[in-house]
Amino acid sequence: MTRNTQTQGTIKILRHESEILKNNPLGDKYVRDLYVYLPPDYESETNANFPTVYCLTGFTGRGKMFLNDNAFAPNLAERLDKLTGNGTIRPMIVVLPDCFTYYGGSQYINSSATGNYEDYLTQEIVPFVDENFRTIRDKNSRAVMGKSSGGYGALVMAMRHADQFGLACSTAGDAYFEFCYFPGIAEGFRSIKGDPKALVEKFWREDARKSKDDFAALNTIGMSACYSPNPDSPLGFDLPFDLKTGEIRWDVWERWLEHDPVRLVEKTAENLKSLKLLYIDAGTRDEFFLDLGAKILCEKLKQFGVPFIHEEFDDGHMNIGYRQTRSLELISQNFGNEKLREVRI
Amino acid sequence: MTRNTQTQGTIKILRHESEILKNNPLGDKYVRDLYVYLPPDYESETNANFPTVYCLTGFTGRGKMFLNDNAFAPNLAERLDKLTGNGTIRPMIVVLPDCFTYYGGSQYINSSATGNYEDYLTQEIVPFVDENFRTIRDKNSRAVMGKSSGGYGALVMAMRHADQFGLACSTAGDAYFEFCYFPGIAEGFRSIKGDPKALVEKFWREDARKSKDDFAALNTIGMSACYSPNPDSPLGFDLPFDLKTGEIRWDVWERWLEHDPVRLVEKTAENLKSLKLLYIDAGTRDEFFLDLGAKILCEKLKQFGVPFIHEEFDDGHMNIGYRQTRSLELISQNFGNEKLREVRI
Amino acid sequence: MTRNTQTQGTIKILRHESEILKNNPLGDKYVRDLYVYLPPDYESETNANFPTVYCLTGFTGRGKMFLNDNAFAPNLAERLDKLTGNGTIRPMIVVLPDCFTYYGGSQYINSSATGNYEDYLTQEIVPFVDENFRTIRDKNSRAVMGKSSGGYGALVMAMRHADQFGLACSTAGDAYFEFCYFPGIAEGFRSIKGDPKALVEKFWREDARKSKDDFAALNTIGMSACYSPNPDSPLGFDLPFDLKTGEIRWDVWERWLEHDPVRLVEKTAENLKSLKLLYIDAGTRDEFFLDLGAKILCEKLKQFGVPFIHEEFDDGHMNIGYRQTRSLELISQNFGNEKLREVRI
Amino acid sequence: MTRNTQTQGTIKILRHESEILKNNPLGDKYVRDLYVYLPPDYESETNANFPTVYCLTGFTGRGKMFLNDNAFAPNLAERLDKLTGNGTIRPMIVVLPDCFTYYGGSQYINSSATGNYEDYLTQEIVPFVDENFRTIRDKNSRAVMGKSSGGYGALVMAMRHADQFGLACSTAGDAYFEFCYFPGIAEGFRSIKGDPKALVEKFWREDARKSKDDFAALNTIGMSACYSPNPDSPLGFDLPFDLKTGEIRWDVWERWLEHDPVRLVEKTAENLKSLKLLYIDAGTRDEFFLDLGAKILCEKLKQFGVPFIHEEFDDGHMNIGYRQTRSLELISQNFGNEKLREVRI
Repeated sequence: MTRNTQTQGTIKILRHESEILKNNPLGDKYVRDLYVYLPPDYESETNANFPTVYCLTGFTGRGKMFLNDNAFAPNLAERLDKLTGNGTIRPMIVVLPDCFTYYGGSQYINSSATGNYEDYLTQEIVPFVDENFRTIRDKNSRAVMGKSSGGYGALVMAMRHADQFGLACSTAGDAYFEFCYFPGIAEGFRSIKGDPKALVEKFWREDARKSKDDFAALNTIGMSACYSPNPDSPLGFDLPFDLKTGEIRWDVWERWLEHDPVRLVEKTAENLKSLKLLYIDAGTRDEFFLDLGAKILCEKLKQFGVPFIHEEFDDGHMNIGYRQTRSLELISQNFGNEKLREVRI
Repeated sequence: MTRNTQTQGTIKILRHESEILKNNPLGDKYVRDLYVYLPPDYESETNANFPTVYCLTGFTGRGKMFLNDNAFAPNLAERLDKLTGNGTIRPMIVVLPDCFTYYGGSQYINSSATGNYEDYLTQEIVPFVDENFRTIRDKNSRAVMGKSSGGYGALVMAMRHADQFGLACSTAGDAYFEFCYFPGIAEGFRSIKGDPKALVEKFWREDARKSKDDFAALNTIGMSACYSPNPDSPLGFDLPFDLKTGEIRWDVWERWLEHDPVRLVEKTAENLKSLKLLYIDAGTRDEFFLDLGAKILCEKLKQFGVPFIHEEFDDGHMNIGYRQTRSLELISQNFGNEKLREVRI
Repeated sequence: MTRNTQTQGTIKILRHESEILKNNPLGDKYVRDLYVYLPPDYESETNANFPTVYCLTGFTGRGKMFLNDNAFAPNLAERLDKLTGNGTIRPMIVVLPDCFTYYGGSQYINSSATGNYEDYLTQEIVPFVDENFRTIRDKNSRAVMGKSSGGYGALVMAMRHADQFGLACSTAGDAYFEFCYFPGIAEGFRSIKGDPKALVEKFWREDARKSKDDFAALNTIGMSACYSPNPDSPLGFDLPFDLKTGEIRWDVWERWLEHDPVRLVEKTAENLKSLKLLYIDAGTRDEFFLDLGAKILCEKLKQFGVPFIHEEFDDGHMNIGYRQTRSLELISQNFGNEKLREVRI
Repeated sequence: MTRNTQTQGTIKILRHESEILKNNPLGDKYVRDLYVYLPPDYESETNANFPTVYCLTGFTGRGKMFLNDNAFAPNLAERLDKLTGNGTIRPMIVVLPDCFTYYGGSQYINSSATGNYEDYLTQEIVPFVDENFRTIRDKNSRAVMGKSSGGYGALVMAMRHADQFGLACSTAGDAYFEFCYFPGIAEGFRSIKGDPKALVEKFWREDARKSKDDFAALNTIGMSACYSPNPDSPLGFDLPFDLKTGEIRWDVWERWLEHDPVRLVEKTAENLKSLKLLYIDAGTRDEFFLDLGAKILCEKLKQFGVPFIHEEFDDGHMNIGYRQTRSLELISQNFGNEKLREVRI
C-alpha cells in the first residue's frame, strides 16, 4: 500500500529454543525466530490482556512470510493495523509460528520423518507465547487460522487440541485427500524418476528450474513424510506409489487417509462440538479442489452434529490473502466470555 | 501431404444395418456407414485373400475420422498407401468401425446405457467384413489396433475375443483408471453442476464454448455410461460421485475398476497368452498418464506370464497419429501362419 | 452428428491441372483435386442455375478439410444440407479450393516465393467451376467467405476482384498486422534459431513435437513467403527480422503492411463499395486479436464510406465453424438480382 | 533456508522525507522508509568505508521486497551474508530504494504523470545514503543493479548518471520495446475496456481476481505514465492506443521508443564507455523476450564501441533471484581504484 498510514501494531521477534525439535530427523533448526504481532494498544494499555490468534502458513511457508511486502495488498500486519484501526476487529495478539522443514512443511503434526511439530506448537509455542505476552489464557480467547496446509493445521488443532484453541478457521484447508492429493501422485511420479532425494535437493538448488510436476512431486514427498513415516524405510517414510511403476501402494494411501479431516471428524466430533467457532471456506476455482474438500467435510460435520460456518468465494487457491479478513472478523466476533470482558475493563 | 503420389488403395463405404444396435437406449443410428480401406493390390489380385486390421478411434471419434485430411501428416489411408508402397507393410484390408454414441463413445463394450457395441463389433461387423471382402478368415490374420479409448477397445478385443483377433496393438490405451480417469472426476464435478444431461447437451450445441473441465465432465459421464450402467437410475447409469457434494461413490468406482485392463489381465490371461502379438506403447508426456497405465499393465502381464512388447516414445496424448506406423509394421510382421502363406501363393 | 438425416447434397471431386501453378517455386502439386458441394436440388432441377460460394480455409488448411468429420459438430457439407433442408439458405454450389503450399498456405495472393494463387483462384478455378457446373455467372451470385487466412483471402477477393465476387464474408480475417502477426515474430525467432528451412522441415516430420513457438515460427515464415518475397534472397523471401539478433527489419515489415486489409481499404474503396455484401465478424477472445483487427478495419471502411456489417461473438479463434452459418445466411439473403430470379422460375 | 547460519549483516531502516516527491501527481507517499543492508564488518571496522550497491526492483516492486522471506531461496540479505561470509564478494553496503507508485512503478525516471523518481534517486537518495553511512563516495565504488524494470533503471542510471554510478548490471532489463511491451498493448486493450482508471482501481481492490490481460493492461498504463506523460490529458498521460478501437497511436509510441535503452545508446555512449562495469544478462525463455532485447542492446553497444559483458541463462523471467549472485560477484570484482584500497587499509 502506498497511501494509508494508521496506528501501527508492533512486530516482536523472539528467539525460541525447542526441546522437542532438538535432534529432529531432518536436521532442521531447533532454534527458531517466533514472529508475534502486538496490537497498537498493547504498549499503552499495560493492564489489559489480549486474545490470541495463531496464523499457520501453507506448505513451503513459515510464519514470517505473512509479513512479506506485497505490491497492492497489505501483508498480515498491515491488514491487522487496518482492521483494528477501523474497528472491524478488536485488538489481538497474532502469533506466526515457523513449522517449516527440509521437505517443505510439517502439516503441524508429529511424524518420525520430520519431527513432532504438533507437540512443538501446542506444548512449547503456546506456553511460550503465554509466558512472554499479556495473553488471555483461555481457550475461548485463543484462535487458530490458516490457508491450505495452514487451514489443515487449524483443523487439526481444533480436532485434537480444542482444550487450547476454542476457535478455528480453515481457508482452503487440505481435505478429501482423493481430490487434493491423489491427482498429484501421477504427476509427481514422473518428475521423481525413482529418486525422491534428488527431487528434494533440486528444490534447494535455487538455480534449478522447477516444473509443475516437480511441485506435485515435492508435495507428494512432503505429505508422505508427514502422513506415512516409516523409521525402517531408507527415506524414513513410505511413498504412496511404487517407485518403479507408479502403481499405488494402497496400504500407504490408507495411512494418508487416516489424516484426512474428512475421516478425522468421526473421532474428534466431541472436541469440534466444544468450539466457539469453526469456520470453513474455499474458492470455487481452487486448483486443488479444496472447495470440494470443504463441502464434503461440512457434510461430515453435519452428520456428526458439529456446528460450523461454511462459505465459498469466487477465486482459486493462490493470491487469496484477502480472505484473512473474513476469518479475523469472525474470530473477533466470537472471542471471549465473561471473564475476558472483565479483564478488558 | 502436398508432394508425394503413389499407388493408392481404395476406400469402400458400406451401409450396414445393425440388429444389435436397433433400439439402442440413446436413440443413436443403427444404420451406419462402414469405411474400409482396400490395399492397392486388392482389385488386381482377384484370387488373393488379405489379412485385416480393425482400427478403433478414441473417445469422441468414429472410423471415418481416420480419413480426415491433415495439413502436414498423412491420414490413415495415405499412411497405408505409403507403407504398402515402400514395402514396410504387406497389403492388408483396414476396417474403420463407427462405435460413436450420443455420450461420445462406447469403449467398444456392451452397456445397457449405451448399447451393445462389443457384440456389434464382434458379432456383426467382423462377419459383415468377412462376407463382403476377400479377407483371410483366421484370427492370426485379423488384428485390432487403436489409440486411447481405441487402444482400450483393442485390449478388450484381445482379452475377450482372442478367438477372433490374434494380434492387438494399444497406443495410450485407457488403463489404470486411478490415474487416467480419477483426476477428471473432480474437474468434471465442477462443470456438471448437478446436471449431467445439460452438460452433454452443451456438447451438442456447437456454438457453446467448452472448457477443459467440460471435457473432463463429458469423459466422466461417457465412462459412467459404459462402466457403471444402471437401468434403474434416471440417467440409465450411475456416476462415480455424489451429484451434490462431489464425494466419491466407491461402490460405483469399484464397478469401473472391473473394466480396467490392469484388473482384467487376471481373468483373461489365457486368451492373452494365445495372441500372436500384443503390443503396448504410450508417450512419456501423456496428459492422462497412460504411459504409467501401460507400465502397470505390463507388470501385470509379466506376473501372469503373458508375452508382450512394450515401447515408450517422447510425446503426449495428442497428435501422435505417426505411432500408427509402428503398430502397423509389427502387425504386418506378425500376421499369418502356414495356411495364410499358401493362400498368398 | 449421430442423429439427423436429411436430404443430402453431393460432393464432386474434379481433378484440375493448373497452368499457373505449373513450375511453382516450392515444387507443390499443380494438379489438385477441387472439392465442390452441389445442393440437393442440383440433379433434379436440371434447368436451374445456382449461385456459388467459394469457401477459403485458414493457414495450414485446404478445401477438403471443410469435409473432415467431427464428433459433435457438422462438417461444411452437413451444415449446408441442414441449412438448405430447413430453408435457412437457398440452394447453392459451394467450392472448396486448395491453395495450400509447402509453407502452410498462400494467403490467396501472388508471390514469387510460393506461386500465383490469386491468379490461380480467379483466372483458373472460377472459370473452371463455371464451365463444369450450372452456376449463375454473375458477380452478384458469386460469394467468397472464409476464416482466419481464409477471411483474409475473402477480403482480398472483395478488394481486388469485386468484378468476380460480389459478396464477401470474413470471419476473424487477418487484419491489423501489428496485432495479429507482430507478437509472433519474437516467439518465432526463438524456435527458428537461425535456420528457417530446418523449422519448416520439422513440420513435415510428423513425429517431431511442435511447440507453440514453432507454430509462431511457421506462421512468420509462411507470411514472409507471401508478403515479402525476394527472388534474390537465398530463401526466396525476406524475413521481417534479423536472423542473428531478432531485430525487426522495418523495410521488410513495411512490405508486409502493404498487404494489411486495414491499409488496402484506401486503394480499393471503389471495389468495396460495389459489393452487395461485406460481412466482418470475429470473436472477442480471439487469440490473434483479430476482433481488434476487425474493429480497426471497420473504422477504415467507415472513413472511406464503404458499407459493411460487423458482428462480434463471445469466443476465441479455434473451433468456431458454427460461425459459417451466419455468413451463409447473409450470403443467401443478399445473393442475386432480377436476372437471377428469372432464371430460378 | 532452514539450515545455514552465518555472520549476518544488519538491516537499517531510515525514514526519508523527500522534497522532490512532495506533491507528486499521484498522491503517493513522499516520506518513505529506506532499507539499507550493512555488511557484517560494518560495525566492527569503524574506520572503514564501504562500496555501495543500489538494488532496484521490477515493476510492482519496492526495495523492501528484496527482504521478503522465501521457502527455498535466500532473500537478498541472506544471499549477501552468504556471499560475504564465504569470500565470494567483499563487504558492501546495499541500498534498496522505494520508487513504487500508484500505477505500479516509476521506471526510475522523471515523469509529470508519476513524479521525478530519477531526480529522487540521484539527487536525494544517493546523498542521503552517503551522509548516513560510511560509503566510499566515488562512482567507482557505487554500483547499480536490478531485474526487469530494475534492470531498466540500472541502465538509465548508467546512461545518464555515470558520474554517480560507475558499475551497472541489468538482468532482463526492459529493452527493445517492440518485443517487451508491444504485444501487451493488444492484451491490455481488452481488459481496459475503455476505462484505464477502473483497471488500476481493480488492482487496488485485493479481492478482485486479476487476469493475465489485466496485468498486461496495468503494465501498459504504468509505462504510459512513465514514457508518454501529458499534463493536458485527462489521465495525465497518453496511452499508445486508441481507447475505442485499439489502433496504435504511433506518435505516442514514438515517445515510448525514445526511452528504449536500444535507442538511448547512441546519445549516451560516452557515459557508457566511462563505466568500470556494464553487465547484461537475461534468460533464454524470458516471457517478455528480454533476452532478445539484451541481444539487440548489445549489438548497439558494439556499434558504438561500448565495452560490456553479456550472458544468457536457461530460464524465464520469474524466480531468477539467484542471478543476483552473478551481478554481485562481478560488481565486487570490479569495484574500486587506488584511493579505495587506501581507505580499506
